[in-house]
Amino acid sequence: MTDILTALNHRYACKVFDPAKKIPADLWQQLEQSLILTPSSFGLQPWKFLIVQDQALREKLVPHAWNQRQVADCSHLIIMTVPKTLGEDYVDANIARMIEVRGGTADALMGFRKMVLGFRDGLEAKGGLETWAKLQSYIALGQFMLAASLLGLDTCPMEGFVPEKFDEVLGLEGTGYTTAVLCPVGYRSADDRYAELPKVRFEFKDVIEYR
Amino acid sequence: MTDILTALNHRYACKVFDPAKKIPADLWQQLEQSLILTPSSFGLQPWKFLIVQDQALREKLVPHAWNQRQVADCSHLIIMTVPKTLGEDYVDANIARMIEVRGGTADALMGFRKMVLGFRDGLEAKGGLETWAKLQSYIALGQFMLAASLLGLDTCPMEGFVPEKFDEVLGLEGTGYTTAVLCPVGYRSADDRYAELPKVRFEFKDVIEYR
Repeated sequence: MTDILTALNHRYACKVFDPAKKIPADLWQQLEQSLILTPSSFGLQPWKFLIVQDQALREKLVPHAWNQRQVADCSHLIIMTVPKTLGEDYVDANIARMIEVRGGTADALMGFRKMVLGFRDGLEAKGGLETWAKLQSYIALGQFMLAASLLGLDTCPMEGFVPEKFDEVLGLEGTGYTTAVLCPVGYRSADDRYAELPKVRFEFKDVIEYR
Repeated sequence: MTDILTALNHRYACKVFDPAKKIPADLWQQLEQSLILTPSSFGLQPWKFLIVQDQALREKLVPHAWNQRQVADCSHLIIMTVPKTLGEDYVDANIARMIEVRGGTADALMGFRKMVLGFRDGLEAKGGLETWAKLQSYIALGQFMLAASLLGLDTCPMEGFVPEKFDEVLGLEGTGYTTAVLCPVGYRSADDRYAELPKVRFEFKDVIEYR
């Protein structure tokens, strides 16, 4: 594993993946586990990560992602989806899992349950629940890109797609989940001229301020 | 540096920092650089990272963060702020920086400028620009927490604060920036009983699906 700054300087938004190069199983398992371990607000994990490996399905997605070939040519296509609402059943499933892992009783977690549902109600009153869930999925995105980079892999964070079409093609309609963001991962092609461009970042003084 | 899964399993939302333990300068510099290197949509870097080290200022923030002491007791307090709008001057500053780093001319980047401003107009029409900027800051948050973890540091992602009060205390009013999310970083206290709790995550089958 390389060090953090080397990884981040090597990283770029991969425009052309080498479709012949696949992520070895041991690295992929690390990435999968890292997704599961992503932190989230209240530990609610408001996401499902779809890994699209069916090539025909990927090709159907390409036109709805501004024809960007990364969707089809990457080794593993991760689609981060989030719930549009947060039902009591969802919160209770989370609490059941807490009890399963840590022991204890539902009674002891009544305060937590009430707090989370109150938080949920506050978000829904403002129409902000889906946005909150998307924010959490971007924690996963940020963590995942660094993890992949440290393992010598390339990624391309993608917001350029039509969520309604993705939901339709992926069969998400009626599931309560919607597509938040995409992250193809794999290996850059030797032909990707973007790989060699110097990284553009604002100067230190423009983005970091001490108080 | 530890490996990714060891770091993520060791990581938790730190409830009690040891106020006596400060991050060594070499590690802090890596973290600062990693913040600057965070990926963002179109490379627009819609953020300023405030590092609050003034103890009196931190104490003023505590009551506006649900009295959570992490804000005062961490080694370094990072406040991720984002722009509420994206003016042409902001986009032009980004383009000027691209030219500075990569060479080329503003004329050659006219297409990029037009695309970004069109994207910005689309977001603003939906009232979604601030949300988009916040999403980008959560990429920074996710990346930062993993980076810190890999370096043996503890963090606590915090959404529990009053943005208007933070903006007021930090003097952000009139700057066009607003507080998006907090991330205190430092070292866990030996007294933090949360550190020992088993991590709760949904089972693999509940969060990862293959297609």
